[in-house]
Amino acid sequence: MISHCYIEDIGTHLGGEILLKGWLYNKRSKGKIHFLLVRDGTGIIQCVMSEGEVSEDVFNTYDKLTQESSLEVKGKVREDKRAPGGYELELSDIKIIQIAEDYPITPKSHGTAFLMDHRHLWLRSKRQHAILKIRNELVFAIRDFFYRNKFILVDAPILTGAIGETASTLFETQYYDEGKAYLAQTGQLYNEAACMAFGKIYCFGPTFRAEKSKTRRHLTEFWQVEAEMAYYEQEDNLELQEKLVEYIISWVLKKNKKELELLERDLSKLEKIIAPFPKILYDDAVKILKKEGGDIEWGSDLGGDDETILSNMYEKPVFVCNYPKKARAFYMKPHPEREDLVLCADLLAPEGYGEIIGGSQRNDDYDSLVQRIKEENLPLDAYEWFLDLRKYGSVPHSGFGLGVERTLAWICKLPHIRESIPFPRMLYRLYP
Amino acid sequence: MISHCYIEDIGTHLGGEILLKGWLYNKRSKGKIHFLLVRDGTGIIQCVMSEGEVSEDVFNTYDKLTQESSLEVKGKVREDKRAPGGYELELSDIKIIQIAEDYPITPKSHGTAFLMDHRHLWLRSKRQHAILKIRNELVFAIRDFFYRNKFILVDAPILTGAIGETASTLFETQYYDEGKAYLAQTGQLYNEAACMAFGKIYCFGPTFRAEKSKTRRHLTEFWQVEAEMAYYEQEDNLELQEKLVEYIISWVLKKNKKELELLERDLSKLEKIIAPFPKILYDDAVKILKKEGGDIEWGSDLGGDDETILSNMYEKPVFVCNYPKKARAFYMKPHPEREDLVLCADLLAPEGYGEIIGGSQRNDDYDSLVQRIKEENLPLDAYEWFLDLRKYGSVPHSGFGLGVERTLAWICKLPHIRESIPFPRMLYRLYP
Repeated sequence: MISHCYIEDIGTHLGGEILLKGWLYNKRSKGKIHFLLVRDGTGIIQCVMSEGEVSEDVFNTYDKLTQESSLEVKGKVREDKRAPGGYELELSDIKIIQIAEDYPITPKSHGTAFLMDHRHLWLRSKRQHAILKIRNELVFAIRDFFYRNKFILVDAPILTGAIGETASTLFETQYYDEGKAYLAQTGQLYNEAACMAFGKIYCFGPTFRAEKSKTRRHLTEFWQVEAEMAYYEQEDNLELQEKLVEYIISWVLKKNKKELELLERDLSKLEKIIAPFPKILYDDAVKILKKEGGDIEWGSDLGGDDETILSNMYEKPVFVCNYPKKARAFYMKPHPEREDLVLCADLLAPEGYGEIIGGSQRNDDYDSLVQRIKEENLPLDAYEWFLDLRKYGSVPHSGFGLGVERTLAWICKLPHIRESIPFPRMLYRLYP
Repeated sequence: MISHCYIEDIGTHLGGEILLKGWLYNKRSKGKIHFLLVRDGTGIIQCVMSEGEVSEDVFNTYDKLTQESSLEVKGKVREDKRAPGGYELELSDIKIIQIAEDYPITPKSHGTAFLMDHRHLWLRSKRQHAILKIRNELVFAIRDFFYRNKFILVDAPILTGAIGETASTLFETQYYDEGKAYLAQTGQLYNEAACMAFGKIYCFGPTFRAEKSKTRRHLTEFWQVEAEMAYYEQEDNLELQEKLVEYIISWVLKKNKKELELLERDLSKLEKIIAPFPKILYDDAVKILKKEGGDIEWGSDLGGDDETILSNMYEKPVFVCNYPKKARAFYMKPHPEREDLVLCADLLAPEGYGEIIGGSQRNDDYDSLVQRIKEENLPLDAYEWFLDLRKYGSVPHSGFGLGVERTLAWICKLPHIRESIPFPRMLYRLYP
């Protein structure tokens, strides 16, 4: 019996007979020679058959096959230097599994809304394939980084009673008879409890922001890896972030060269991402932006356009440090010398991509944290457990969150974040 | 300067001076010798100081230190065969970071409700520490298994318009102006789209079931790894599941011996978990259960007690195969010779633990799937994309989902699933 083989492993079967199971990606014919491009999810290979060398039935199957028809093919693997993967299949048999109806995504170009409505099929295209294969490596690289550095994975809950960031962008659901539950905007508060138990921890899951933003940087549901370290000051925190970003970029450069080339990514830009990264103060960033004609005023958060300007000024990611207290979440540690600032930093990816990491040292003082929770009009009782962390052996601690999709968008140089996640959720998008 | 070191790495500093940063776990004194048990999240070490060998100030610090006070200690690492980790610290200096208020979790025993209300602190205890360290390895082992076997991670969305399992156990939220969104009960439907694009894929994230169950096996929010493979029949599916379970058990046995011993787990039970696993038909399972005095009738799903009886009959996990169609979700493939059955299997863990995996071959036929969606009174338009997969190159395909917490509960032999996740969500539990 001829055994089933995946296209990505075809090189190990050179000269042998194999069975492929997949779909028709495309076809062309020179009359007496038919070419089938077959994909199986791990690659695409050209299959060739000549009239007279296969049965008439098999030869004529060519005419029936439509784009994305499912089929099994048998044949002999031969080298072909001109072929994309370096191999070609000399067809001996074809078995049709299903003749596909008229496939909606044809080689001609389609509008974005149409492709998004067909995301379940669009995933089969070469470009989406390349992006999500890089995503696969990116996520594994992140987990590998933390595992090797002996961080413990402590998954934070999604359904929570405590608000992590701002009350204005919450999804809520009825939680049995217990009242409202919110979908987590961040796992950070739970991370703080976990780092007091395990020293160095991370969580890695989906997070949710009901922001009514329609920008190329916003998803309603996005994946975030968040690390939290006991006894880390802000400098230790930044150093760890640099190492993480350097690690994942070097991993992707090693594992995804083929995919990055398909996306026509300029690899030299990524090869420059080596720690340390430049750091500027928020105060100075505002001055720079004003000089560049931005309409930012001291005290407000940086907008998307502001980030674009700053991030275009550097070849490496740049940290913007110490934002105004009033522009940031309640849990950040006040600056020891400037009470209007907090000890925090955003990491902006270069080439105009903007924020990929937000991090800070956390407020470890009971009284001032209570005051901040009150200032933000958050319900104290929901944070009782969070405040406990400041009663029972409070320590300096810091952490950060890296957005997977924003990081992937930068790595792949995508024009819009919607391509960086298998099934994007946005303001007007819940389907498929 | 003396450099900071984690307790887990202390063996590499034998004879040297180090700095530890952590919390007081416990203390005792023999008058002229004080013993501090210090934990730092990576381990616990005994620190010793004798009167006269440290300054009076340092010696008297002992009296001030309460349980869970945060502190930094300096000292010399020496071997001590009687100590749990094999090492002990000869203290030279102590710096108090914070004297903890009366710590609520004392060495005396506490009720479950109390401990659950203090989950953020309970995580610091030895037993919870051991469980969650095993969880850390378990999750990494699962990801490693799929990565090595060249599966592509394709994260499924949490917010969905389509119902994955049953309409009766859904959490819902308002999704902007787009109507209701549901929290995913499973990523499977999306996995089916993804496996047609990538061949072999998995998703791994939190899933949600609003079941009003108060059993030792149910969480409202639980983590699930779900794999889906194009061109896999049910037999291929079961074989993959066996390999996965064998892989993670052998991983945990290698990495977590210390933790399993702390939990007093009988390792010989786990060492027997080697593929292949026994398989019985649902039909036969019902006969067995009736003979054992169970009140199950053919046609209904197995209850928790039924699973317990079956799972106690084997030393290995056991597959229960081919359930009645009416007891199972709409997307399963009908049995080719018995139209009242579907091609599916649940894997029951031994020692009474019951279901850890549910899997099936999927219905790949357009017409019969439409009929099943209608029979279940599900809205056809929300499944349009799912039905597309049966139009454009439908292929045989199969998949399964493994519940992380149930698997961990079995591995650790926990009496209740609530200890298997950092912050459990249950019928009456949304805090902390």
